[in-house]
Amino acid sequence: MDQRTSRVDEHSRYYNQIAGSNPERLGALSDGIFAVSMTLLVLALAVPAAADVKEAGGLSPALVHLVPNLVTYFMSFLTLGIFWVGQQTQLSQLERSDRDYTWIMLAFLLFVTLVPFSTGLLAAYYQSRLALVEYWLNILVLGLFILAGAEYAARRGLFPEANLRTIINAVRRRVFIAQGLYLLATVLCVVDTRLSIGLIVAIQLNYAIAPRILFLHRL
Amino acid sequence: MDQRTSRVDEHSRYYNQIAGSNPERLGALSDGIFAVSMTLLVLALAVPAAADVKEAGGLSPALVHLVPNLVTYFMSFLTLGIFWVGQQTQLSQLERSDRDYTWIMLAFLLFVTLVPFSTGLLAAYYQSRLALVEYWLNILVLGLFILAGAEYAARRGLFPEANLRTIINAVRRRVFIAQGLYLLATVLCVVDTRLSIGLIVAIQLNYAIAPRILFLHRL
Amino acid sequence: MDQRTSRVDEHSRYYNQIAGSNPERLGALSDGIFAVSMTLLVLALAVPAAADVKEAGGLSPALVHLVPNLVTYFMSFLTLGIFWVGQQTQLSQLERSDRDYTWIMLAFLLFVTLVPFSTGLLAAYYQSRLALVEYWLNILVLGLFILAGAEYAARRGLFPEANLRTIINAVRRRVFIAQGLYLLATVLCVVDTRLSIGLIVAIQLNYAIAPRILFLHRL
Amino acid sequence: MDQRTSRVDEHSRYYNQIAGSNPERLGALSDGIFAVSMTLLVLALAVPAAADVKEAGGLSPALVHLVPNLVTYFMSFLTLGIFWVGQQTQLSQLERSDRDYTWIMLAFLLFVTLVPFSTGLLAAYYQSRLALVEYWLNILVLGLFILAGAEYAARRGLFPEANLRTIINAVRRRVFIAQGLYLLATVLCVVDTRLSIGLIVAIQLNYAIAPRILFLHRL
Repeated sequence: MDQRTSRVDEHSRYYNQIAGSNPERLGALSDGIFAVSMTLLVLALAVPAAADVKEAGGLSPALVHLVPNLVTYFMSFLTLGIFWVGQQTQLSQLERSDRDYTWIMLAFLLFVTLVPFSTGLLAAYYQSRLALVEYWLNILVLGLFILAGAEYAARRGLFPEANLRTIINAVRRRVFIAQGLYLLATVLCVVDTRLSIGLIVAIQLNYAIAPRILFLHRL
Repeated sequence: MDQRTSRVDEHSRYYNQIAGSNPERLGALSDGIFAVSMTLLVLALAVPAAADVKEAGGLSPALVHLVPNLVTYFMSFLTLGIFWVGQQTQLSQLERSDRDYTWIMLAFLLFVTLVPFSTGLLAAYYQSRLALVEYWLNILVLGLFILAGAEYAARRGLFPEANLRTIINAVRRRVFIAQGLYLLATVLCVVDTRLSIGLIVAIQLNYAIAPRILFLHRL
Repeated sequence: MDQRTSRVDEHSRYYNQIAGSNPERLGALSDGIFAVSMTLLVLALAVPAAADVKEAGGLSPALVHLVPNLVTYFMSFLTLGIFWVGQQTQLSQLERSDRDYTWIMLAFLLFVTLVPFSTGLLAAYYQSRLALVEYWLNILVLGLFILAGAEYAARRGLFPEANLRTIINAVRRRVFIAQGLYLLATVLCVVDTRLSIGLIVAIQLNYAIAPRILFLHRL
Repeated sequence: MDQRTSRVDEHSRYYNQIAGSNPERLGALSDGIFAVSMTLLVLALAVPAAADVKEAGGLSPALVHLVPNLVTYFMSFLTLGIFWVGQQTQLSQLERSDRDYTWIMLAFLLFVTLVPFSTGLLAAYYQSRLALVEYWLNILVLGLFILAGAEYAARRGLFPEANLRTIINAVRRRVFIAQGLYLLATVLCVVDTRLSIGLIVAIQLNYAIAPRILFLHRL
């Protein structure tokens, strides 16, 4: 290897070393993307047009037509809230970041930005199994990237040595159990998609508000 | 309880302990959601289409049609500004956060993202009592979650001991009086919804700019 | 004054004292609102629909129709960039903030969120003097609130004593001269609104890129 | 030069000195603009309307129509991710900022906000060379401003002396090679625009996930 190549290698190495090494900016970008995605959900709640109000026979019945949109809006806010807590917990445990970890998180954020689309699709076609499966795939991929991030960080020593096993075990258990429950809820769409949607919301509420109340509190 | 369960318990405990424990990231997410919601309000101010301008007989009368949208836009910016100040004051007093407090604030933020919808609804149907009551419910729930956050933080010792009573009393008084005034303004929609809207704006302006001028300055 | 009232007063005083006292959160909210407003400008650049492309005789002439939208998009990005630099310079000089300063800045941010509307209006009706005057009023009010913020901060001792006169004089000069130039450009709409738009862009470019080149460099 | 002028000069100098001197706020604005732009990309993925679903013969074929939108959405997320990593790496190396550097970055951010438009245009007209060239120009200008920022910072001593040569060489090499590859991919649109799009995605994936695998790893 001649000297020029070696100098070039060194530059590349240095660049790759400093690129994406700041978990704070990654956290700030993540907060921004979550904030925008959570707020864009509301665009799926279109104010009923004057013509629709007339046709429905008043504002009150026109608002009733929005119930599927309201349910999916609420469900998606829960979804994003759960993954935001999960990701910020993971980031807060990092001692440092690196370029590959940054890209795992960017891939995770890609699917965060997809949630408003999956929500709109499910709100419009809540009786379609395809729309439900698409929504479930979105949740599944989010879970897989959270897991991939933790596994990568554990292997590369981005977590402090002392908490390593505790963190990685907690993440694995949470992802496996939660995703198992989501899969179960989704499979029940063979009965009725609304049953699946109700179950997903129940699972999410359990994670959000009641981990100490329901029998799942040990999970 | 066998050893395996106890280890699992410990992992869960550790995870629940570190999850949502960072008030800074919660503040960043909140700022993002408030920023997006405040800016999305402007989407309720649609630029008049060429056909509407022709029909109205010029740009000037077409803009006059936007007056209800302008009023609700202004009112909602005030609403969000007041709750932003309230929430950031509360967060700035926290010594630490925890998972349940985080979820109370996420529920609060859910209703922050709803404000652009409530605004659009009221702008389109400002003479409808239903639209007004929906708007008022949005404000009411925001106030209740601010209160719930403060009560929870006080009970769990998230505020510094020294300021505890001062903070919780100030929050209670502000929420009770402000919500009382909003309720009064809303009830007056039996006379005219525009009277209610005018009163809500007046109450908000009092909180925003004139707490030392009006007789309410002691409240 | 009985003891109860005095305790209540104390609580209110304490609350007003801590409310809005953190310039960092105000900076974060401002960055968020500027970021969303700057990005929403692009929504005024609608991708030409297939029917419009057919009617215009190809994608190329259909894109030419977007020129007014491109110009106003560019102009508004400059407007927001200039006021972002101005506001962040002011905030960076604060030793502390208070509740009233926070509300002056929230009023400023209200008119920041209005810029995408003013931009869309001017893009659609760039030959209308009314649309131009509305745009100019938006810029004028932004300048007035920047000035009001600096005057208030100076009077209340929010700036460090040592730099006080330098800061306030610099802000006054910049606001007066820039607003004078904007007014001049707007008045020229009696000749042609496009002349006004061109002049506003030239003034903004001068502030953004060439303060050392043009004769205005001392201003 | 009389005394008054000299005092005025001093004020201007002081203002220009403090304006834009804070790289943290610039980073926060950038994170916000990237976050909003990345999330707005999803708006190019419109949920198929009921009429379109009927016409396409079901939700499944209607979703297949979204494939070009999905590909450009994915490509643009990669584009923005790559430039976000590039810009935050550059900002993280700054010892300080100044007004002109801030404006170079604001110009960079202007073209960041343009990416959702270029994406929507390419999704709608992916067989048009004009739409492809417009997309490529957007990437080119982003690269040029990243380079301009680094060159300016190097000349003005905004980077620490010790890393100066390493940083500037790494940026130059990356921009030249990446832009060369993008140009090559774009030129191949004379064969087929879809070939160009596929190649751009491949180049981006190489930068994002595989710099150590492909033959380009030394570049």
